[in-house]
Formats: sequence, structure tokens, C-alpha cells
Amino acid sequence: MTTSAPIRLRVFSLNCWGIRYLSKNCRERFVLIGDLLNQEQLDLALLQEVWCEKDFLFLKKKLGSVYPFSHYFKSGFIGSGLAVFSRHRIHDAFLYRYSLNGYPYMAQHGDWFGGKAVGKVLLNISGLNVHVFVTHLHAEYCREKDSYLPHRVVQAWELHQFIRHTSAGADVVILGGDLNMHPDDLGTRLLRNYTGLLDSFSEAANFEGCEEGFTHISENPFTHSDGLVPFGGGVRIDYILFKGSGEVDVSCESLCTTKGPVPGLPFPYSDHEALTAEFLFTPTKKGNGCKEREFGCIPDKLPELVNTVNEARTEVKVGLHCSERMRHTAARTGIMGLVLLVLELAIAAVPLFALGAEQPFPKASFYLLGALCFAVLLSTLMLYVFYSMEVKALQGTEDQMRLALSSLQERIKEYPKALSSDHLRNSLDSKDSVHLKQDS
Amino acid sequence: MTTSAPIRLRVFSLNCWGIRYLSKNCRERFVLIGDLLNQEQLDLALLQEVWCEKDFLFLKKKLGSVYPFSHYFKSGFIGSGLAVFSRHRIHDAFLYRYSLNGYPYMAQHGDWFGGKAVGKVLLNISGLNVHVFVTHLHAEYCREKDSYLPHRVVQAWELHQFIRHTSAGADVVILGGDLNMHPDDLGTRLLRNYTGLLDSFSEAANFEGCEEGFTHISENPFTHSDGLVPFGGGVRIDYILFKGSGEVDVSCESLCTTKGPVPGLPFPYSDHEALTAEFLFTPTKKGNGCKEREFGCIPDKLPELVNTVNEARTEVKVGLHCSERMRHTAARTGIMGLVLLVLELAIAAVPLFALGAEQPFPKASFYLLGALCFAVLLSTLMLYVFYSMEVKALQGTEDQMRLALSSLQERIKEYPKALSSDHLRNSLDSKDSVHLKQDS
Repeated sequence: MTTSAPIRLRVFSLNCWGIRYLSKNCRERFVLIGDLLNQEQLDLALLQEVWCEKDFLFLKKKLGSVYPFSHYFKSGFIGSGLAVFSRHRIHDAFLYRYSLNGYPYMAQHGDWFGGKAVGKVLLNISGLNVHVFVTHLHAEYCREKDSYLPHRVVQAWELHQFIRHTSAGADVVILGGDLNMHPDDLGTRLLRNYTGLLDSFSEAANFEGCEEGFTHISENPFTHSDGLVPFGGGVRIDYILFKGSGEVDVSCESLCTTKGPVPGLPFPYSDHEALTAEFLFTPTKKGNGCKEREFGCIPDKLPELVNTVNEARTEVKVGLHCSERMRHTAARTGIMGLVLLVLELAIAAVPLFALGAEQPFPKASFYLLGALCFAVLLSTLMLYVFYSMEVKALQGTEDQMRLALSSLQERIKEYPKALSSDHLRNSLDSKDSVHLKQDS
Repeated sequence: MTTSAPIRLRVFSLNCWGIRYLSKNCRERFVLIGDLLNQEQLDLALLQEVWCEKDFLFLKKKLGSVYPFSHYFKSGFIGSGLAVFSRHRIHDAFLYRYSLNGYPYMAQHGDWFGGKAVGKVLLNISGLNVHVFVTHLHAEYCREKDSYLPHRVVQAWELHQFIRHTSAGADVVILGGDLNMHPDDLGTRLLRNYTGLLDSFSEAANFEGCEEGFTHISENPFTHSDGLVPFGGGVRIDYILFKGSGEVDVSCESLCTTKGPVPGLPFPYSDHEALTAEFLFTPTKKGNGCKEREFGCIPDKLPELVNTVNEARTEVKVGLHCSERMRHTAARTGIMGLVLLVLELAIAAVPLFALGAEQPFPKASFYLLGALCFAVLLSTLMLYVFYSMEVKALQGTEDQMRLALSSLQERIKEYPKALSSDHLRNSLDSKDSVHLKQDS
């Protein structure tokens, strides 16, 4: 079924910043995004932060003639915000919700309500199985003191696991989205090293767009430019990653980003810049129809991978430490609330503690205090359940990482010649000397 | 790497009913389960309801010499309860939590707190990639009026999706666990028809055990036998399913179940019976190293599959209808709470509504009513968020099912000869005539 002529595929990715009533020029921008997609006649558009289903349906209608196939991934309270528009038939869709994604009480950040996830759609392009992933990871609100780092590391771990486990039958893998991580951040390295996915920015034969491929720039009128000053006026946090297989060589012919305002208008498409990558799929001579069977990465990259997984494991342990402390605090506060409530009931019920007859019983304060105790008890109970779930998710990830490390260790033993023995020893030693960074 | 001699694999599955302090003879039973596993010298033990990590660690220690490899899947508040013990190295582990799993306020059922999931471990047995899945679905508390049916159908859908998407590189797939569904229930059919997994009970050359393969029997002193009378004294809800690939033929040589009490003792291992299946893997002559590339099932089973997906979609729609109604009720109650609160504040603040000077202001009732309004407001808000998430998950599943149906339809068009045209037409017509069953 596979054709032997090279195939071109143009892929678009944009975080649309589509929070109705909160994002500026939201509806106008969706009209402009629709116009751009229709004009560009791409193969595939991977959108993030399409929070409102009405906006998805608007795009679906507007883009129907150029992109007859689409899928909107629903999850969480608001939705995952992920949408795919395609000129090729979508054969199957699957969603994986990340186990950790912020805190419900941090309503001002709102990530928890978004139900962040990775969506997968399956395309068949000229006989090739193309597995397309779209995702959006937890935002980074403060790089210096990033309390969400363990959550983002867990998300990056789950993302790599999901891609690795579900793409064994793929001829081509493409991942687009807002990872909210810089190119050398732990999560990005983990993802790239473990899955073998290549960065279209580094691989593109031609690049046109913002300096250093920035996708979140200080010139953008919708961004808080202060935060971007230390990074030279921009950061690269949106990506299109890709890889081929034994069946197909994939090369990135070009990558471009939008650069600020929409031509002729005072504002841009979003607070992020859009990416457009052009890929060339060249079926290999081998064409034996066999996929890479082994999970994981290339042997000579194993020591680097071991280091990265160790680093991630440390970060997860730091998160676990914090989370256990929070759970402990919730339990202690809850017990205090309970004690106070019992004391109150005792005051009301036992004559021994009753006030003298000359003083009237302060009913109002009594009820108010009781209600307060009850509220404390209830909210700490819910927090305790929530933190326990966080602890379980972090422990689960750490267990998986430990297992992965021992499996990598086994594989290193099998390929000893490919490795410098010093490098190897360092990597393995560091595994057992993971120390907890103490939060300041 | 693949050996050409047949390989024998013995797999065990048991729902251990391991709720500390609530399950009867819990600790003694774990000792007995450990003894049984050590004595049987199996290849693989898939356990469910090992709710307490201490019990897992106890088993890990006890079984260490026979089963050197193990993994415990953590999720939710209590944990997923899933554990794997293996004589073969576990190379990788991955967990998928089901998006729906009961309600947190149904604490007496407790499923929500369990964080039900499907766990996957990767084994390499004599060069064969063996993908092993273990799961436990939401319990069925009342078959006649099963309010959790949509949740279980969504779980079965997600289970089949997870297996289908993650096992493209597998030579052998094995799934063991407590599905809480009878052999002909919608979810079981969905799982079997879509993944092509075979039931070891139907396929086993030799069977020994409870009548009709029952795994939940009325003779068991831990079960409520009344509920099992209509089903002839037992139900089959625990399964070991399997399939091979182009690389390996897998046959089930034998299946046996435990039959009530442990020999010499008045009680059994659990409230479920344990399953032990013996498989024979015979590498095929083809041995070309290629996996089945196409997702999904055999062409001539497509119409049956279309019917099953339609049926599942109807069930999900019924669930969606209920869930939207519950969300609506939560919203309405919340608004009532808010109106009452505003009214109270108005009474307190606006002199117009104030009581005459001759009557003292009823402070205590005022505060009590205020606290009550506030509690109603808060709890309905949380319920609204929870039901919205349920609605999103159900809508997401329905979307995936619709996509799957249109993809199956395409495939049926490609294989018209394999099908009787009448059967096909019926299947496709029924797709568009899904009517909502009204809950009584």
C-alpha cells in the first residue's frame, strides 16, 4: 500500500489563548486564525487553548472545505483545549489525561480546571501510518520558584510514556504543542532523549521567524514582557517534534514562526507565535514493513538518558516531599478543627463548662465558631484526599522511573562497547546518590 | 533473538479483596495467597484489590525468591489496588487511570477513592515481547438498576483503546483482572470484538473449576449469596484474555479456578475465585518479525463490532443525559442557596426588612441559616464542577465512538465482499437511530 514517491506534509501548531471573556480580542483572533489556516492550505493544524467548544465549532464550520476532518479533545472541567484539523481522514482518536495538573484551589492559575492531556489522532497518508500527538503542559508562572515543576516533570514523563507505548506501529510520529518548557529544560530533554523525537527547529533546513525560534516574545502586546527580559526578549516553549521509522525517512524542509502582529492589524493571532513545519517523508529502500520493535532510544545515548531520568526522579522526589508535607499540614489542621468542635459541643452539653447564669449564653458566637470548625474540618478533609492522590501519583511516577532506570542499566550492560566506561559509571553511581533538595 | 521452541507460560489472576480492617481474615488470606503463589511456581501473578501497600510489600518479601520482579500500581486516594508479580524481568510499566470511576460522595461504595486503572507491564520472554495488562473495573452493586453502567462502559472503552493503541509492537498480549462484567455484557463484547482478545475460558483445551467458570460464587462465605441466585449460584466476572500475533501462535492449554475454601481451612482465598491459565506460545513459521499493522479486528466481524459500538454509544448517551440532569440540579440548588444568602444579608443590612424593635433579632437562627446557605452553595459548586467533568468525559468518549464508527464504516466499504449486505445495512442504519432510553 505504501507509495514510494516522497510525501510532503505541512503541520501547524498554535496556542490560541482562547479564554472567552478573559483573553483580549478572542473572537476576532479566532476569525483571523481561521482565515490563516484556510489561506495556508496546510495538511494538519494542531491547536491548543481552544477552551470553548463554540470556538472549536466556529473553526470547524469555517475550515470545513479545506480541512474536512477534525477532532476536539474533551477533558476536565473546561476541556483540554486541544483541537486537530486535518485534510486527511482521522481514523482514531485517544486521550491521556495527566495525573497531576496543578491545584483546584489555585483558581487564578486555572490549569487544574483545564484537564491538561495529550491527544492522539491516527492518520493514514498514502499508506503510511502517521501518529499525531497534540499536547499542552502546565504553565510556568515563576521560573525562579516554580512550585509546579514536579507536576510538569510528571506530565513530561507521562507524555513520553504515552508516545513511546502507543507509537510502536507508527511509520511517522509528529508531536505539536505548547510544552511550557525551554529547549534544555529537564522535561524537554526527557521527552527528546527517551522517544528519539527530533526538534524541527534544530533539524529544519530553512528557518524563518523570530530570533532563536522564540514562540513567546516580549514584543507581543498580550504578553507580560517583564518576565521575558532575562531570556533575551523571548522563549521557545512551543514545538513541533517528529521522527520517522525503519519504513520512512522524515526530514524537516522548513520551519517558520509568525512574528507578532497580524499584517495590517495592531494585534497578533495569540499571545504565542504560531509554528509551521514542512516535512518530507521518503519511504526507505528497505521497505520491509517492519517497525522498530525495541522500545526506547539509541544505545550510545543511554548514559545521557540515565542522567536525565535520574534528574527527573530527583525532581519528582522533591515534589513528593512537598506534597507529603502539605498532606501532613492538612491532617494537623483538620485535627485542630475537630478538637475545637468537640470542645464547643462539650461547652454546650456539659453543665460543668457552662457559663454562670448571670451571663447569657453567647449563641451567635457559638454557632459561628461551630460553623467555622466544621468548614475547616471539611476543607482539610478534602485537601487531605487531594494531597493523598498527589502523593500516590508522584510515588507511581517515581516507581516507573526506578523501573526504567534498572531496565536502562540492563540495556547498557548489553551494549558495553558503545559506551565510554567512565561516563557509564558516573551515570549509574548518581542513581544511588539522589539527594533531596530542601525547599527554601 | 526469538527462539523457535514452544514456550509455556502460566498466568494467575485474583481479586484479593484486601481492604484492611474491613475485609474478613485479610492478613491471614494474604499469607495463604503468598503460600499458594510460591507453591504454584507460576510465571506471572496479576492481583487486584491489594489496596494496602503494606500487603503488597509483605507479598513482595514473601514471594521474592520465586518471583523476583514485581510492580505495584499507585493511583487515586487509596491506590489502584493492582499488583504484578513475575518470574521474568519487568522492563517497563505504564498506568492509565479511567476518566470515570463512580462518585466521591458514594463513600460506601468507595470505587472513586480506588482510582481504578489499567496497568501495563512489558516482559521479554525468550525474545518475545509480551505485553501484560491488569485491570479492575467499577463494581456492579445492583444489576437491575445499575447507575454505574455508563461509567463501566466508558472504562471498557478506555481499556480497549489503551490495549489497542499500546500493543502494536506486541508478540503476545495478556489481560487479566476483575472486569465486573458478565461474559456477554456490553463492555466485555466491546473489549473482545475490538481488540480481538480471546477468552481463556472458551479457548482452554482443559478446564477444571467452578461450574461455567464462575469466579464469584454463592458458596463463598464472604459473598452476599442472595444476589447470585438469579444467575444459577455464580457469575463469571474475572478473566484472563489473550492473543498472539503474526509472530506467535498462542493457545490456552488449560484453565482452572479455585473452588471455595482453602484446603483444610473454613474460608477461601478471597471473595472471588482465582484463575490460573496455562498458555503455549508457538513461534510461527513465517517469523518475519512483522506485527499486525492495522488497528482493530477481523473484517468479517466488522458489522458485529459496529453494532456493539452503537450499543455502547447509546449507553454513554444515557449516562450523559443523567449527568447533565444532575449538573442542572446542582446548578439550580446552588442558585437557590445564593438567593437565600442574599436575602438573609438583605434582612440584616436593609432596615426596610428589619423586624420590629419589640422583637429581638434572632441572631442564632440567622447565623445558622447563613452557614447552611453557604454550605449548600459550596457543595453545589463542587458538585457542579464534578458533574461538568463527568459530562466532558462522557462527551469525549461519545466523540471517540462516533469517530470509530465512521472509521469502521470506511473499512466495511473496503471489504464489501466479506459481508452479507443486509447485515451491513442494518448495522449502519442503527447508527443514526440511536434513541435515548429514559431513566425511570
